[in-house]
Amino acid sequence: MLIVGERINTSRKRIRRAVEERDAEFIQKEARLQVEAGATMVDVNAGTSVKNEIDDLKWLVEVAQEAVDVPLCIDSPSAKALEEGLKLHKNGRPMINSITAEKERMDEIIPLVKDNDTLVVALCMGESGPPKNAEERVANARVMTDALEAAGVPLDRAYFDPVIFPVSTDPQAPQAAIDAVRTIMTEFDGAHTTCGLSNISYGLPKRNHLNRVFLTLVIQAGIDGLIIDPTEPNMMSTVLASEALLARDEFCMNYITAEREGRL
Amino acid sequence: MLIVGERINTSRKRIRRAVEERDAEFIQKEARLQVEAGATMVDVNAGTSVKNEIDDLKWLVEVAQEAVDVPLCIDSPSAKALEEGLKLHKNGRPMINSITAEKERMDEIIPLVKDNDTLVVALCMGESGPPKNAEERVANARVMTDALEAAGVPLDRAYFDPVIFPVSTDPQAPQAAIDAVRTIMTEFDGAHTTCGLSNISYGLPKRNHLNRVFLTLVIQAGIDGLIIDPTEPNMMSTVLASEALLARDEFCMNYITAEREGRL
Repeated sequence: MLIVGERINTSRKRIRRAVEERDAEFIQKEARLQVEAGATMVDVNAGTSVKNEIDDLKWLVEVAQEAVDVPLCIDSPSAKALEEGLKLHKNGRPMINSITAEKERMDEIIPLVKDNDTLVVALCMGESGPPKNAEERVANARVMTDALEAAGVPLDRAYFDPVIFPVSTDPQAPQAAIDAVRTIMTEFDGAHTTCGLSNISYGLPKRNHLNRVFLTLVIQAGIDGLIIDPTEPNMMSTVLASEALLARDEFCMNYITAEREGRL
Repeated sequence: MLIVGERINTSRKRIRRAVEERDAEFIQKEARLQVEAGATMVDVNAGTSVKNEIDDLKWLVEVAQEAVDVPLCIDSPSAKALEEGLKLHKNGRPMINSITAEKERMDEIIPLVKDNDTLVVALCMGESGPPKNAEERVANARVMTDALEAAGVPLDRAYFDPVIFPVSTDPQAPQAAIDAVRTIMTEFDGAHTTCGLSNISYGLPKRNHLNRVFLTLVIQAGIDGLIIDPTEPNMMSTVLASEALLARDEFCMNYITAEREGRL
């Protein structure tokens, strides 16, 4: 399971301040905490500072990768920012977050995926706006699959994200995302799936209960990547328990090891 | 969702002592705690004291139903004990726990279900011992369905329990139970399902993680009854969050109400 730690994002007030103040120690602690909790990759996003995004993102890449050995997930809608961040990246194969099924964004970013041999988050969002159901999500994934294949990028570099909307505004939102994950994992040979799942609980109280339950549901649907805060209580224990119960962790060896190492 | 609180069982040391000492106050507190946590029915089981089971069970029925308004789930393999317990029951429609697909047990207990107009837990265990896969579970359910129908008991009185074995000894155990629940809910018109789910985590550390994840998986499979300890941390919040995410709680009204009432 790919676990992308999502905490280093300037939409969080405390991270924004650390970036503004160039507080490297704080960012590095955030990176280390996430890896210790189970992240296999660390996301860096400076998207709130449109004016300084490129400089801020470059700084985040440099600072974060000094603190941890895992690769970074470089997170921006801007091809220019991604390109500058990628130039500095040095810990293994990075990930780009993200492309969508919008032509302009694919045209700009897929060449970066190819030239830098990266992984990529492929958000199932199309030209016509937010997807309304599982079918639209899968259709958007198909558009991106075609574009990646046309560019010569192997499909196993892509992690399709069904795009999660809050259950508070649409009772069918969880099932649509679950169905899209299952279909993509079944029908797209070699492709991966992921999701930024905490949006599922937006607007509701005690969001952790909903986040961890949704985590189990997407794991059951076959997801093999997650964009989460691995330090959030119960998240990594839910991943491990779900894999143990869904025959993805034979005789529960990972689960038992995690307990022995104090990670449950 | 039917929630049967499982705590009043003499296999728990503290309960056994309370029964031996006829400590009514302790038992009544156990009953009340479970109903406050969300139990819609309270199980009473005196099965460890073979010699005194009937007297102990009668005492438990009388004592527990004084403390709470919900019906009891009278739990014994002995038809005689069940019969004596049922005679004393007064809070609404009780449940019998349980029949199996074994002929002798059905012959003894189904008449009690019929004559006392009770609900019944129907354990998917057959003459040939523990079921090996989902198909054997469903076949055992079919044997019980036929017997109930022959006796004139409506199928909606039955809660089929797939029988849960530990994932620690069989990696396929969770999926077999999940598949059986889904098949019974789909193919047996009117029938309910339930399970005593904590057996799933037997032999493993930090069992609560596994119990709550398995809870989500059986709810997704369609289960509409649970035999749990509703006071165990995260259990009722997992039920509520699962129902909210699986479109069984439109616009999350139950979830939101539970939070307002401090039950999350």
